[in-house]
Amino acid sequence: MKSLYAADIHEHQLVDSYFLVSAKNHGVTKGGNSYLVLKLLDRSGEIEGRVWERADDLGRGFEKNDFVRVRGQATLYQGKLQIRVQDVMRVDEKSVAAEDYLPKSAFDPESMLEELQAILRGIKNPHLLALAEACFADQKLMELLKRAPGAKTIHHPYLSGLLEHTLSLLKLILKVVDNYRGIDVDLLLIGGFLHDIGKVYEFTFDRALDYTDEGQLLGHLVMEAEMVSQKIAAIPDFPQELAMLVKHMLVSHHGAYEFGSPKLPQTLEAVILHSLDDLDGKIQAIQSLAEKEPGSKWTAFHRAYGRSFYRGGPGEDKKE
Amino acid sequence: MKSLYAADIHEHQLVDSYFLVSAKNHGVTKGGNSYLVLKLLDRSGEIEGRVWERADDLGRGFEKNDFVRVRGQATLYQGKLQIRVQDVMRVDEKSVAAEDYLPKSAFDPESMLEELQAILRGIKNPHLLALAEACFADQKLMELLKRAPGAKTIHHPYLSGLLEHTLSLLKLILKVVDNYRGIDVDLLLIGGFLHDIGKVYEFTFDRALDYTDEGQLLGHLVMEAEMVSQKIAAIPDFPQELAMLVKHMLVSHHGAYEFGSPKLPQTLEAVILHSLDDLDGKIQAIQSLAEKEPGSKWTAFHRAYGRSFYRGGPGEDKKE
Amino acid sequence: MKSLYAADIHEHQLVDSYFLVSAKNHGVTKGGNSYLVLKLLDRSGEIEGRVWERADDLGRGFEKNDFVRVRGQATLYQGKLQIRVQDVMRVDEKSVAAEDYLPKSAFDPESMLEELQAILRGIKNPHLLALAEACFADQKLMELLKRAPGAKTIHHPYLSGLLEHTLSLLKLILKVVDNYRGIDVDLLLIGGFLHDIGKVYEFTFDRALDYTDEGQLLGHLVMEAEMVSQKIAAIPDFPQELAMLVKHMLVSHHGAYEFGSPKLPQTLEAVILHSLDDLDGKIQAIQSLAEKEPGSKWTAFHRAYGRSFYRGGPGEDKKE
Amino acid sequence: MKSLYAADIHEHQLVDSYFLVSAKNHGVTKGGNSYLVLKLLDRSGEIEGRVWERADDLGRGFEKNDFVRVRGQATLYQGKLQIRVQDVMRVDEKSVAAEDYLPKSAFDPESMLEELQAILRGIKNPHLLALAEACFADQKLMELLKRAPGAKTIHHPYLSGLLEHTLSLLKLILKVVDNYRGIDVDLLLIGGFLHDIGKVYEFTFDRALDYTDEGQLLGHLVMEAEMVSQKIAAIPDFPQELAMLVKHMLVSHHGAYEFGSPKLPQTLEAVILHSLDDLDGKIQAIQSLAEKEPGSKWTAFHRAYGRSFYRGGPGEDKKE
Amino acid sequence: MKSLYAADIHEHQLVDSYFLVSAKNHGVTKGGNSYLVLKLLDRSGEIEGRVWERADDLGRGFEKNDFVRVRGQATLYQGKLQIRVQDVMRVDEKSVAAEDYLPKSAFDPESMLEELQAILRGIKNPHLLALAEACFADQKLMELLKRAPGAKTIHHPYLSGLLEHTLSLLKLILKVVDNYRGIDVDLLLIGGFLHDIGKVYEFTFDRALDYTDEGQLLGHLVMEAEMVSQKIAAIPDFPQELAMLVKHMLVSHHGAYEFGSPKLPQTLEAVILHSLDDLDGKIQAIQSLAEKEPGSKWTAFHRAYGRSFYRGGPGEDKKE
Amino acid sequence: MKSLYAADIHEHQLVDSYFLVSAKNHGVTKGGNSYLVLKLLDRSGEIEGRVWERADDLGRGFEKNDFVRVRGQATLYQGKLQIRVQDVMRVDEKSVAAEDYLPKSAFDPESMLEELQAILRGIKNPHLLALAEACFADQKLMELLKRAPGAKTIHHPYLSGLLEHTLSLLKLILKVVDNYRGIDVDLLLIGGFLHDIGKVYEFTFDRALDYTDEGQLLGHLVMEAEMVSQKIAAIPDFPQELAMLVKHMLVSHHGAYEFGSPKLPQTLEAVILHSLDDLDGKIQAIQSLAEKEPGSKWTAFHRAYGRSFYRGGPGEDKKE
Repeated sequence: MKSLYAADIHEHQLVDSYFLVSAKNHGVTKGGNSYLVLKLLDRSGEIEGRVWERADDLGRGFEKNDFVRVRGQATLYQGKLQIRVQDVMRVDEKSVAAEDYLPKSAFDPESMLEELQAILRGIKNPHLLALAEACFADQKLMELLKRAPGAKTIHHPYLSGLLEHTLSLLKLILKVVDNYRGIDVDLLLIGGFLHDIGKVYEFTFDRALDYTDEGQLLGHLVMEAEMVSQKIAAIPDFPQELAMLVKHMLVSHHGAYEFGSPKLPQTLEAVILHSLDDLDGKIQAIQSLAEKEPGSKWTAFHRAYGRSFYRGGPGEDKKE
Repeated sequence: MKSLYAADIHEHQLVDSYFLVSAKNHGVTKGGNSYLVLKLLDRSGEIEGRVWERADDLGRGFEKNDFVRVRGQATLYQGKLQIRVQDVMRVDEKSVAAEDYLPKSAFDPESMLEELQAILRGIKNPHLLALAEACFADQKLMELLKRAPGAKTIHHPYLSGLLEHTLSLLKLILKVVDNYRGIDVDLLLIGGFLHDIGKVYEFTFDRALDYTDEGQLLGHLVMEAEMVSQKIAAIPDFPQELAMLVKHMLVSHHGAYEFGSPKLPQTLEAVILHSLDDLDGKIQAIQSLAEKEPGSKWTAFHRAYGRSFYRGGPGEDKKE
Repeated sequence: MKSLYAADIHEHQLVDSYFLVSAKNHGVTKGGNSYLVLKLLDRSGEIEGRVWERADDLGRGFEKNDFVRVRGQATLYQGKLQIRVQDVMRVDEKSVAAEDYLPKSAFDPESMLEELQAILRGIKNPHLLALAEACFADQKLMELLKRAPGAKTIHHPYLSGLLEHTLSLLKLILKVVDNYRGIDVDLLLIGGFLHDIGKVYEFTFDRALDYTDEGQLLGHLVMEAEMVSQKIAAIPDFPQELAMLVKHMLVSHHGAYEFGSPKLPQTLEAVILHSLDDLDGKIQAIQSLAEKEPGSKWTAFHRAYGRSFYRGGPGEDKKE
Repeated sequence: MKSLYAADIHEHQLVDSYFLVSAKNHGVTKGGNSYLVLKLLDRSGEIEGRVWERADDLGRGFEKNDFVRVRGQATLYQGKLQIRVQDVMRVDEKSVAAEDYLPKSAFDPESMLEELQAILRGIKNPHLLALAEACFADQKLMELLKRAPGAKTIHHPYLSGLLEHTLSLLKLILKVVDNYRGIDVDLLLIGGFLHDIGKVYEFTFDRALDYTDEGQLLGHLVMEAEMVSQKIAAIPDFPQELAMLVKHMLVSHHGAYEFGSPKLPQTLEAVILHSLDDLDGKIQAIQSLAEKEPGSKWTAFHRAYGRSFYRGGPGEDKKE
Repeated sequence: MKSLYAADIHEHQLVDSYFLVSAKNHGVTKGGNSYLVLKLLDRSGEIEGRVWERADDLGRGFEKNDFVRVRGQATLYQGKLQIRVQDVMRVDEKSVAAEDYLPKSAFDPESMLEELQAILRGIKNPHLLALAEACFADQKLMELLKRAPGAKTIHHPYLSGLLEHTLSLLKLILKVVDNYRGIDVDLLLIGGFLHDIGKVYEFTFDRALDYTDEGQLLGHLVMEAEMVSQKIAAIPDFPQELAMLVKHMLVSHHGAYEFGSPKLPQTLEAVILHSLDDLDGKIQAIQSLAEKEPGSKWTAFHRAYGRSFYRGGPGEDKKE
Repeated sequence: MKSLYAADIHEHQLVDSYFLVSAKNHGVTKGGNSYLVLKLLDRSGEIEGRVWERADDLGRGFEKNDFVRVRGQATLYQGKLQIRVQDVMRVDEKSVAAEDYLPKSAFDPESMLEELQAILRGIKNPHLLALAEACFADQKLMELLKRAPGAKTIHHPYLSGLLEHTLSLLKLILKVVDNYRGIDVDLLLIGGFLHDIGKVYEFTFDRALDYTDEGQLLGHLVMEAEMVSQKIAAIPDFPQELAMLVKHMLVSHHGAYEFGSPKLPQTLEAVILHSLDDLDGKIQAIQSLAEKEPGSKWTAFHRAYGRSFYRGGPGEDKKE
């Protein structure tokens, strides 16, 4: 049904396809005529649509976050591709496959979840294993985990991004602990599994990715500390000290007060968790940035990291 | 039984009284003889004790945090009063009244708790009133609240200091809201009541005031957010948004990331709570500092606030 | 004469009213025609006006900061209301009531000044009372105080905003001191009265609110410290130490070096003054923000405070 | 009368000389005997004195800030020279020349003042010249300027240090303006003359150098802005804008909020004044530090600058 | 050949001149027609050009960084002068004098270089003199030094700006050292000469001024430290300690970690170099800012310094 | 020869062994007798020695950094073990094995170096392999690398600590790159190898570990960037861009300006290098801290990290 994706549209092409409307704004030309500026989303990316004729009439038929069928022609406006829209109308969300319209992980969530569970089932500490299993048994949580994004913009900002990041982090933990003696790998694995689990309620991701009110006012650190306490309370004989160490990893994993951690990491495992979480996020963010606009030696500026990145590879001798 | 308090001892006085040993260190004179340096605590303050003779023998008979009977004579050492201890021996804790040995609020905890409860029972919102009552009904919590200190050093650092601060804050809230329209006074009162309640588990205060491991690794903000969630879970029909607003006040009440709040205050009530909490603590701390060493126009340096305070009153013309 | 206010204009309405021109810019359409973009101010707010025809001719007849009569029709441009101006011409400032054109306090300045004077006449310290009376006797100062704004943008940014804030602060002080022993209320009241008095010369507020050169180069803290010294010099037997304490409150009331206080608050009264001044400003700013765009649960972003505020009230259960 | 200076005392020397007591503390030996630890000051530096015998008796005869005659013998204690005091007694301050007892500038204050006045009398702007002359005519101010220190510890911390620093700065200004066009040299000279003038009241320097209460609560920036305003008020036709520019230089000359300037330098002359003032202070401080402990290639750690300085000169080849 | 400069064009003038294209962007009118927006550069400044007709055709004939001949008419658009371009075509770079098209120093680079060399040949230390001569003998370096800019935007951002700044700094050093004893003037002169020499490779300045990749990834501090090491390595018997002191000045001359110095200045000469370098840059930047838009009393906002500057001179009495 | 190590000495033991004197200070008892306080070092740690008798005589026979033979008896002084020294005399350094006297890595430097070389010889990029080999061929560099410490105090502060840290980092890199696609492992391995190589000249480690003057004034980042440039210059056809990327990793590896990096990491490999370097150092530092004072649940306070660490392991249930 979704036959043409935003990323594949080329200049002059006639378009007849479905999109998610992520923004809808009215304008008036200097000659006094109404027009509409739309942001049209699908999983491949975003394209602007402009309605120059019958804008008032067509505009009444749909709202932001609706799915629509769009007909028109692609043209180049100020160096960017746009659809000059001839017709646009709302379609029922039952008639579309939502997955076609939101960016999502390149990996299959079911497979990732299986791999993640397999890793965590290797935990030897019976209390921590029981905690992992208690989470697996929470079907709503698992369903949300399969869809939730890793963040709004900084890293893994797409459907299933949270799961992709969590799995990558667990595999990274397994490799790193191998290099050192004396790290409690079970504790670190549970910390890796749960460190961002509160994001399933911190964000809405049915349509446009955004913060929930609770996410904005409490944050995933506080939300997941409470969530994990509830799971632990239902496990018989879970040691108090162990519960404290698990929750300490969660509330300290941003690593510094200014990033919203109310406590600094104060155990070896909490220090390692913060470090590897940060590293895994940065690698994804930089690589994703580097894949865009491949013509240039420098990426676009990354606001959160305060810099551009140089992508010119060293393997070949570009300058000589 | 406790006949003589540290603060009342004067030079040359013969001392025979009971103290709590809050520190016990060994020394050796340059001539090679053992001696003991003790910190002897009672509720009026602290005095140093030095055991010059039979130090090894006497030292074997008691440890830090024991109650002891001390006999000796007060002398001035380098400008500070000390007890030159002749004899010191452990006494059973059953034979002392613990309240005599730890600094405590000038106000009666029972009366303060009654006054606090009376204020909170004026709450009109039935959900918030139910939350207050649920806390009142938790006898262990109320017992701890009656004894817990307000902080380790910064403000209200004595037994029942938490209750004294909480009550003072509630009364301040009632006055301040009177000056403005549109503040949700019920919400603010609950916030005032619960903002530091996690300190009952963040500190140990049986003997020497100190942090618990959980207090150090999680902090009272996270601890009390979870504690309040549990109370709310047991109240039928407690609105989700209201629960979120209560918890937001708790986790944001330090007002800034660098003071350990994972979220900034983002409601009018959270902003006011932070401001008044901070003000009440500062007033207590400055006044307490100003009461010491009354001879000088400047107080001692306050480390957390980074300054001394000028206490020379303006009512009289001191300089002319 | 001023029959229609900016805030009351609705789409399609024919407009014939008077405004203050707070900005006047020329543009040229892509077709090469001149047009004018005006900011039209009255006390209810601001509306944009666009002159599409005879722009050069009409533009020659008035300048920024003139009062003008505007005729045209209101239309919606990109979601915002504008006046499509048919005619605009300068009117003499004598024929308008300036108060109609600038945003101002909701409270009557005369009444506020009376209430403020009544509070300050309750001061018992004869020196401080004499200082207050010396200020009241300065007619130019009192006239400016009745009109001056509280700030350019952060809080109370409208005519008589300084007086409104000062009065609110004095009333807040009276309530707060009631909760504590040992505060010098007379000193605190004088501090509250004078803490921002330099703003009467820091800003121009005849037309568009802006900084004076002196305000920008010296600031109200330094300006008012000097102003108060001059008043004090004319009062016989004013104690030197008291003068120092008054001026200390003025120069320290921003509370931190980074907010332009050359000294930190170092007396109890200076600490309290800073805290309550900050709180009163924040309450006004947040409530004012919350009154705008009432449809959303979150306010617009407040630049100086670095956040949006959640305004969803807790009294009703919005989410269930 | 003052025959032997602290800096000239060597080990084993018999001492009989006069000093200023800048500290006096009691101690008790481990064997229970009283002793006194004195800081004995003269203009060459400081030496510790210890009274082992008759400490109580001798101690009753003098206080801190008294002048005393000391007899004893110099010995090396833990690598530092001390006087083992046999006798110490108070002498009347009339019988000593105060200048012998406090560190002071290597330059003659009278000559420095004359040179400073000669430079300032070269000012061409009649208003600014009149301001300089008004200061010269203030005899009390000139007397204090001749004695005041440049700072408590950071730079020029000795009698007449303020004058030495001010003169050096004026001479530096004259050289620097020569390198650029378009600097208002008259304005900059007045700024250099007055930028620290408030220090004459910020410090006490009769005996031990310390802050006054007013210095601590208001600071020299605010104090001198007011002082200069008073001088200007007495000069007929002094232009308002010029007064503002002079005062702006004073209040902004610390260059940054965190160093206590309520305003940043916002004129070319204020920027230059801050830069050269800072440079002149640093050169004096580093050179003074480098003159001490000449054996080492590194100076002692300078707290305010947060580093040690390398003093190994490059003219000779030390390492090869 | 270059007959008319951007800064001399006035409204309505017919233009036929040569420019460097520093930006070239496509647009589409609301009516659907293509147009071009050009930035046209010459050494006097920049002017916008708009091509409304035959935009696609004309646009194919040239690219960014080409030299072009432009014909059209100057008009005022939204208060700014633009060229309404009738014709634009590429011209060969051999037929233009590049110096006409880039902003450059008001001083002749040859004369500046001679003056700089004369100063440095006054160095008495034979090793440092040899280092200066080694640099002079590097013809490529001298050629680049004659053209390189002082910075991208902050100060001296034009051709030969680096040389102008370096020479001004050397002359300033000579004046300042005259005011103090004990400064190693030879060392300071070499530091002044070489402190920014790495900028010749940090920037590209053939056409549009920009960072090189190496400049962005290593920075001129590191680049010049290595460059100077190579020069020194070729000088027989250059003392190791002296080399270290020279390089220390280079790597520390930004004065603080946050400005990219890996080490703080730790010698007297390094402290002075940082201070005077900073001052010389600021004077140029403020004076350059003050020369623009001469009608206003305040300059435009300077981003790097975080403020506007007041330029109203004190010599005349503007306000009375 | 070295029969008894500091860490093995127990109370009352008679000591006759060899130590390195890392500090030697004179004291005088209150009774006027000279004594010596020594710090006696061997590879197991440090013990204090006190010479109460014949201190002047014995003290003349040796200096700081000498090896000495010490005879005496171990006693407990204020809770810490000391040697009450009867006799102490200098021994020739040829008669001791220096390795016995300085703390050193638990791993054999020869084996570590072999393992490190084996890893680096796996590099596929011929230029980078040539760079590694050029370093291996520098015998002086390899000798220093085998002995140099990892830091003065923060992490790996012992002989061969640099090599231990470097090897651990290379092994960590090999594991981590395995978790991601698209990382240039050769570049990262060279970065890991060389990131701290400048420390071989930043520190002296013949006797007491300390900074060299060059280390203090230039730092290992700048020193090693130059060192690596020299190696590269001798390799034919080494690509310029690759050289730049290698040096970028070196100068940016501290990760932030405030830690002395003049540039932020701006390539994927530089970001990863900084992160893993930081992590490896922290793991060593925390584990080393946790091994001391094993009785307590909390480690000593770590100054550089600003916290203590909780070492109570979760594997067993300590609190229940």
